[in-house]
This record gives sequence, structure tokens and C-alpha cells, in this order.
Amino acid sequence: MEKNPKITANDLEEHIREHDKLRLLLSVTRNISRELEIDRLLMLIMDEVKNALNCDRCSVFLVDREKGELWSKVAHGEKEIRFPSHLGIAGYVASSGEILNIKDAYADYRFNPDIDRKTGYKTFNMLNAPLRNQKGEIIGVFQTLNKKGGAFTVDDEELLSAIAVLSASQIENAQLYEEQRKTFDSFVETLASTIDARDPLTSGHSQRITMYAEEIGKLVDLDDQEQRVLRISSLLHDYGKIAIRESILTKASELTQQEYEHIKEHPNFTKSILERINFSRDLADVPLIASSHHEKLDGSGYPKGLKGDDIPKLSRIIAVADIFDALSSRRHYRDRMPLADIFALLHKEAGSKYDAVFIEALQRMRLDKLVLILEQDDIGQPDQQNLQYLEKFTINDLLDAIKTHVDSELVTGFEKYYLRNYLERPGSKL
Amino acid sequence: MEKNPKITANDLEEHIREHDKLRLLLSVTRNISRELEIDRLLMLIMDEVKNALNCDRCSVFLVDREKGELWSKVAHGEKEIRFPSHLGIAGYVASSGEILNIKDAYADYRFNPDIDRKTGYKTFNMLNAPLRNQKGEIIGVFQTLNKKGGAFTVDDEELLSAIAVLSASQIENAQLYEEQRKTFDSFVETLASTIDARDPLTSGHSQRITMYAEEIGKLVDLDDQEQRVLRISSLLHDYGKIAIRESILTKASELTQQEYEHIKEHPNFTKSILERINFSRDLADVPLIASSHHEKLDGSGYPKGLKGDDIPKLSRIIAVADIFDALSSRRHYRDRMPLADIFALLHKEAGSKYDAVFIEALQRMRLDKLVLILEQDDIGQPDQQNLQYLEKFTINDLLDAIKTHVDSELVTGFEKYYLRNYLERPGSKL
Repeated sequence: MEKNPKITANDLEEHIREHDKLRLLLSVTRNISRELEIDRLLMLIMDEVKNALNCDRCSVFLVDREKGELWSKVAHGEKEIRFPSHLGIAGYVASSGEILNIKDAYADYRFNPDIDRKTGYKTFNMLNAPLRNQKGEIIGVFQTLNKKGGAFTVDDEELLSAIAVLSASQIENAQLYEEQRKTFDSFVETLASTIDARDPLTSGHSQRITMYAEEIGKLVDLDDQEQRVLRISSLLHDYGKIAIRESILTKASELTQQEYEHIKEHPNFTKSILERINFSRDLADVPLIASSHHEKLDGSGYPKGLKGDDIPKLSRIIAVADIFDALSSRRHYRDRMPLADIFALLHKEAGSKYDAVFIEALQRMRLDKLVLILEQDDIGQPDQQNLQYLEKFTINDLLDAIKTHVDSELVTGFEKYYLRNYLERPGSKL
Repeated sequence: MEKNPKITANDLEEHIREHDKLRLLLSVTRNISRELEIDRLLMLIMDEVKNALNCDRCSVFLVDREKGELWSKVAHGEKEIRFPSHLGIAGYVASSGEILNIKDAYADYRFNPDIDRKTGYKTFNMLNAPLRNQKGEIIGVFQTLNKKGGAFTVDDEELLSAIAVLSASQIENAQLYEEQRKTFDSFVETLASTIDARDPLTSGHSQRITMYAEEIGKLVDLDDQEQRVLRISSLLHDYGKIAIRESILTKASELTQQEYEHIKEHPNFTKSILERINFSRDLADVPLIASSHHEKLDGSGYPKGLKGDDIPKLSRIIAVADIFDALSSRRHYRDRMPLADIFALLHKEAGSKYDAVFIEALQRMRLDKLVLILEQDDIGQPDQQNLQYLEKFTINDLLDAIKTHVDSELVTGFEKYYLRNYLERPGSKL
């Protein structure tokens, strides 16, 4: 633009419109640039676009190149939508890279009215734009629905394209971050299982107690961040066993006092090994939490003899998961302990050794989940129908059923998984 | 702004200026939002700001809260500047959070002219702005120097503040990413050393061969990405030993054929364990590279008997590092092999077993670096003066010196570290 133009009202108005668009774009950018967690980022982008374009809905579909699919996070749900990446209008945009401004969705042959039919929503108009990364590859599609008070304008097209450029960068950043985290988490998981594998007796132990701990965590409403720390700490709680001599770890006969003391050193090894790791701030408590899983509320535990609330909350969860797994696993010298006996024992030690809150939470665990954890090593595919039946009950329900009617469908349904060895013997009991 | 204003030339001009600012800001944002690697990001930001503000220089100082320091990456160098976080003008801005537009640097009592004096640069004017994160904490300071054709304006102040908001987000994202990567890398390092520690003979082995491999990598100009894959693969090359029975791993007497075959299984274990890890794309080759370190060029290696270029390049580097460490380490049945003998042996097998390119690169390694790797476990602080002396020579120089004058200062200077046991005995030779 020139320095001394002939000024008209049109010039200025156009300029103001252009200016407002830039301001909007900048505010969207500012907001989305703060978020690096992919799920939250996608939600945030959809929200920002919806507001910036003043329309009713916005979806981001991402290209999953390996599977040849487009997928989208659905707002306010944990589920995602997936479909082959050439289908529908999103698929058309993902392949062609065109911006599609459709004034009347039902008049467009590419539009698939099935989703409207299912949800009861009515799509009038839509604006679609591809998300391109730095290399120019299409990594996804924006789809905005039902502009308020009319159709999408050329200004909307420009704004959405500009937002797409910045969103694509931030989405790729978030994907890199997520990928890196997955690498770390799966590395920790692999390490845990290789350590467990040194001792056939405890094979799968770290994996199982992690699953129990996570279930307890959900039932007492831990937030995402606490859940992650709990998960990593549970997986690593026995890392110190790598420093225990194999001959003692796998000894079939009874341990001498000295050997037992050596084994009791493992939480200290766990701590000193984990303390050498340069954990990020969000995982800074992992060494302490992982190494305090043998502490008891009354101070009779080890390695430090911590008492009550001095034991980290997440360690108290791992302690309950740990004892539960020990008693509900097969040992070469005994079968699983009957569930009723396990909880009788836990209740006796609730408050003195183990935290009653987390024992109680464990009892609220759904039976189908329990079966899946118990059986992950033992059987291939559990009976789906039976699992669906067990879905409706918790450990509490089962304990009640055992007390009152030993031969109920519930007890038998569960027993099938739990005490298979007993079932083959006369006089079996849960 | 109203819809039907009285339009003046001033209005429009101001508007155009404002508009240009927004465009600039947006272009800066677009560029920096693409970079998630902290070092590259900081360089990029400094460059973008310099151009956007049309000035001669820009530095970003970041707050290191733990150390109470400000630090900055220096353009085109690997070094960084560090100073206590209350010093100088950057320190003032970091503490006060003010934007400081200084028309005459030398007239300002807070200005430290030392750096100008050292570098020969002349600072006339400067604009400084704090970088604040989402929580409003100051995470750093922008410092721009010498506006071209005048002093920094109020427009510059506004533009720099706006860039600061977006830069702060992106810097924090990059720091999170970096932190996560450090967590992973130090975890891998810790794992490697715990696995080595199972066998006193190989204690420190993974660490050392990683250092040799990295040195070779530098000398053959691997890029950053290859170096990282090399590093992780070297650290993990013996992970499979976790599945080897301790009794065999630590057996003092000679191994039976069967025991030896069992030990030779470890690259397969390394591979199958590492393949369970959900590696990010940039680390996808780690399982293959880590598990191919016993392959030989002529196909006589294991586990697959790969030949020549079918063996991944990075595995061929690890193979050289591995054999060099084995021969230059003490064993309970022998001392380190004399360096001249090691290279005589390597040259005999160059081309048939080991890649000559990487043997040659290893010979170009500086002697002070070799000493630091050799001695990291054995001695506390190597003699600094001697190290500085050794800095000027490579392994090649030493091999030459051995051939020609056995008693040169170089040979004795190195021997001090290498064959300390021999030195104590009469008739020692290198």
C-alpha cells in the first residue's frame, strides 16, 4: 500500500476487516502455542477455530499414514472416530489438498449424511481446509460446520488456511513430544518385564501390579499426572532386583536369614539406581515412590521404617497392589490364595500395615478387569461372553456372593478364571 | 474502531503501521512455531527478532532458576555465556520485568561495557524485554542491539513484547521436549551401567564403548541424528546380557562350548528385547544396530552372519569400539594389551573383520580423550598438566613415537595412564 493514497471509506473498511482477521489469527496462535499435550491441543484447536470462525462445530481429522486412515478425537469423550482416508469430504480434502467451501452440504455428492442421521444433527454448510506441515505434506483436515447467520465467506477461508499452517506446526510438535514419551514409557515397561523374567516366579509381576495400581488410582480419582508417576513407579519398583544375586533370587529352597536380608536390600538398590536418572520435573518423585513400596503404616516396613502419611500416597497404593498380586499369584509351592482369604487378611492389616482407603478402592474394581490382569500370562483369549457378564460386578459383589450363596452364577463365572487348578480337584473352594 | 469514522490520512497511516506490525509478528510466529529443538529454536528466534526489528543483534538470555543465573547460547558457537541473574541490564530486566528502551547504552549506569571492550563491538542503543510464561513467571530476557538508522521506537517495544509472549511458549515447549529426551537418555545410560555391573569384568564397558563410538562418529562427521542413534545403540548393545545366566556370565574358569554358545545368544536377546520397545521414528533402527555389533565384514560374525555393507554403518563403528575396549581393558587374567599390539591386530583384521575407515578414525582420536575414557573408573582426577600435554597428540602420533623413540616424553606421558601395572614392574614395555 502506498504512503499517500486516496482514502476511501471502502479502503479503510477493508483494511479493518483484514486487520481484525490478523488479530484473531494471532490470538488463536497465542492460545494453541501453549499446549504440547496432543489430546488437549486438539480439543483446544477445535474450540479456538469454532470461536474464531463463529460457527457451530469444528473437527480436526488427522492422517494416520500407516493405517491409511483419518481419525478424530471426539469432544468430551475418550473415543475417537476413524475411517479410510479417501472417504467423505474430509477424505476428499486430505487427498486433493483443496479448500472446500460448501454452501449446501446435502446438495454435495461427497457429503455422507449418515452421521447426521445417527446423531440427529443437521449440517447446512461446511468449510474444509487441509493441514500441511513444513514439507507440504497433508497431515490432516479442518472441518467446520454451520456458520452462524449465513454461509462461510472468503475471509473465513483465508483465516482457516492461516490457522491451519500454525496448527500443523503445533500438532507436529505435540506428536513428536508424544512419540518421545511413548518411547520412554515402553522402554520402562520392557525393562520391568526383562527384570521380572530373571525370576520365573515373578514373571509378569511388575506389569500386573502396575495394572492393579492404575485401577486403584482411577477409583480414587488420581489426576493424569499422578497416574503417570504411579505407572512409572510401579513398573520400576523392583528395578533394584537387578543387583540381587540370581542364585538367591531364584533359590527354590527356603532362604537363610542372611539371604533374606540381602533380598530386602532391593528397595535401596531401586532408589540408588533410579536416583542416577536425570528425571524430568514431572517424574522427579519416582525414585522415592518406587523405593517405598515395602514401607508399612505402623513403621514396621523397610528400607526406612516410614510411618503413616510420611509414606508417599502413591507408594501406599503400590504396597496394596503388591501384596494383592503376591497373594493372588501362583507360586511353585502353592496355588492362588482364595480371594475371600486375601481380603480377610488385608482387612486385618488395614490401618496398621496397608492403607484402608486403597484396599477399599481395590474392592471396587470390576471383575472383568481383574480377570484380564490375572490371566494375561496364563490364557490366550478369555471367554468374551463371561467377561461381559463379569463387567457388571465388582470384587465387593463377589465377596458378598461368596458369603451368601457359594454356588451363584457369579462365583462360578469368576472361579473359572481364578482357581482353575482347584476346579480340577474335588473339594475345590474359592 | 467505528464503522463510519471520519477518515484522515493519519488514521490510515497509523492503521497501516499497526497492520505491518501484525504481519511481521505473524511471520515470526509461523517460523518459530516449527522448531522444537531448543538450541536451534534459540538461534532461530534471535535471527527472526533481529530481522523483524531491523537491528544489528539479538540475544535471548534464559533464567536458570536452580543456579540463579542467566545464560545465553552464542551464535555460531557451541559455547554459552552465563552470569548471576541480577547482573547487567539483562539481569535488571529479569528481576524487574520492565521493558527497557535505552537510547544511549554508555550513559546508563546498569550497562556493562566490558563485553564491548573484549569483543571490539560498539553498543549504541538497546531494547530489552522480559519473556514471560503462561503463569507470568519471567523465564528469560530479549536483548536487541543497535537499531539500524536510529533508535528503537515504541512500535519496536510493542512488537518485541508480542514476540516475547509467543517465544516464551515455544521455548517452554522445547524445554519440555528436551527434558523428556534427557530423561530417556539418562535412563538408557543407567540401564547400561546396571547391566554391566552384573559382571565385574565388564563394569563400565557399555559406557566406554559408547564414548569410543561417539569419538569415531565425530571423526567421520556423523550428523546429530546419527550420533544420537549411535549413542543409544552403543549403550544398549549388551542389553541382551540380562537374559544370560549369571553363573555363566561371571564364570572365572574357561567356558565350555555350550556355555559359549549361550553367551553368543546375547545379540539375539538384545534384538528381541529392544524390538518390544515402541521407539520413536528417529530411533527406529536402534534394535537392528545394537544387535549387529558382532557381525564381521567377511560374514564370519553373528547372529546373522551379515557381510560388508549389509552390516549397518553404525554397527560397524560399534564393532571397532567394542574390540578396542575389550583389548584395552584389564581382565583378571591379563593387563591391558599394549596399544601398538592392539592396532597391529586391528590392521591385520581391517577389511576382513573390521571396517578400515573406522579403525583409521579411531587412530585420529586425541590422546587426552583416550585417557579420560580409559581412566574414568580407575582414577579420580587425571593430572591436568599431562592431559593438556596429551591434547596435542593423537593415537597415530603415539604409535609413531613408539616405533621410533620408545622413551620420548609422549610415550612416558601416556604410559603413566595406560600401563600403570607394568610401570611398577621391571622390564615394562608399552
